[in-house]
Amino acid sequence: MASWKDDVHEIRRRIRSAEYAGQTGGMALGHAQCNVVILPKDQAFDFLVFCMRNPKPCPVLDVLEAGRYEPNIAPGCDIRTDVPKYRVYHNGALLEEVTDIKNYWRDDLVTFLIGCSFTFEARLLAAGIPMRHLELGTVIPVFETNIPCAPAGPFHGNMVVSMRPIQGRRVAEVVQITARVPRVHGAPVHVGAPAAIGIRDLNAPDWGQPVPIRDDEVPVFWACGVTPQAVARASRPPLMITHAPAHMFISDLRDSDLIEN
Amino acid sequence: MASWKDDVHEIRRRIRSAEYAGQTGGMALGHAQCNVVILPKDQAFDFLVFCMRNPKPCPVLDVLEAGRYEPNIAPGCDIRTDVPKYRVYHNGALLEEVTDIKNYWRDDLVTFLIGCSFTFEARLLAAGIPMRHLELGTVIPVFETNIPCAPAGPFHGNMVVSMRPIQGRRVAEVVQITARVPRVHGAPVHVGAPAAIGIRDLNAPDWGQPVPIRDDEVPVFWACGVTPQAVARASRPPLMITHAPAHMFISDLRDSDLIEN
Repeated sequence: MASWKDDVHEIRRRIRSAEYAGQTGGMALGHAQCNVVILPKDQAFDFLVFCMRNPKPCPVLDVLEAGRYEPNIAPGCDIRTDVPKYRVYHNGALLEEVTDIKNYWRDDLVTFLIGCSFTFEARLLAAGIPMRHLELGTVIPVFETNIPCAPAGPFHGNMVVSMRPIQGRRVAEVVQITARVPRVHGAPVHVGAPAAIGIRDLNAPDWGQPVPIRDDEVPVFWACGVTPQAVARASRPPLMITHAPAHMFISDLRDSDLIEN
Repeated sequence: MASWKDDVHEIRRRIRSAEYAGQTGGMALGHAQCNVVILPKDQAFDFLVFCMRNPKPCPVLDVLEAGRYEPNIAPGCDIRTDVPKYRVYHNGALLEEVTDIKNYWRDDLVTFLIGCSFTFEARLLAAGIPMRHLELGTVIPVFETNIPCAPAGPFHGNMVVSMRPIQGRRVAEVVQITARVPRVHGAPVHVGAPAAIGIRDLNAPDWGQPVPIRDDEVPVFWACGVTPQAVARASRPPLMITHAPAHMFISDLRDSDLIEN
């Protein structure tokens, strides 16, 4: 029953060759997946301060100094090729989506790898908690909220959240499991009451695809590493390269390495 | 600003003298409050097994052997007089409410003191999480659910839950705070989706009074020590004496004594 989607080496080979350019939800379960933000060095300090001030959406797992493209948390990988799909933002506008960024690479680019909630899904599944988007094979729904991030330098914007429907009887367990891994977003930032955080329609996510919420479930929202992309739109930095939402970099870190309490 | 409701000795004096026969929510904050179940010795073993099998609704804080009326967790107190209001059930039917049970006392009666979620309210308030029923000065709403307890001997029935509206953004924190005190019911058993546990109308609690739920809040449900009273109605033991819901016995245990993780 083993699939190539469970084999991190084969996943990386296919991604690097652009044979696979899809989302990474449910793949290489247990490996820490990462959001990617790449910025010119002259904005790197301000962005790192932004991350420090907003640890729920932007928990930093790795920083690659200017010009470096081999992650410390995945030796042998190349951040210019090993993400399934990239987004290039110019002045806050999405310029294009590409499967590698070799043409964009410059010696002054700094890479930030930010924790992703896909990482704790292995633990939730192991606890018997279904993940609707994995069952359906769809891309997890992600919403921009009205929750302002703490600004830093030019960087400001609202928090983005991922949403998973959870049975009411399992919400407490889900909180406790995810609270233990704060570097991949940790405990939910909101449970139920989507309108209170500016989400008008759960069937119209800003990124990803909607999932049904059953009568015995509540929508549970986690801070999301797509937040920097909402920040790019709001703050309009000259250049920001990111992963495409749900198309993550897969690191060598394990979810078990990230348990903090 | 200190009120007699903060002074456990004065509270007990007034309760013992029947000068006060009201609810104890918000009183002597930080003291562990207790649900009370008193049964003849020939049913005590089965009931204790029932508690062991249902630790969420029935976490046992103290057992007083047959005929004893001085709690181990409140030396000097008298369980026959120091509860504001008692309920006497005969064959599962409520026979009467009284302010002391000296007339009912027998040498074969065994007393169980069971943790109460009032105990963790001090911690929630200290974290800046409002308790709607305390703000309104009403009796916390309590509902019988469709969640079956694990039976033991003659004892069977559904779990009873208390409900507190919590802001969506604070649900995770509330789970984490209450999870640390499992002997006063611990983490919630259900969040949102009341119909999924058989609650048809949040405005019609089975015990206590309804509270408004605001747009940014979700109803959060904790297992409740009124469960034995639902069990009495279902199982019809010849005699069961309990506290009246929300009219608790106040022990010398502190909430801080009960932190387990």
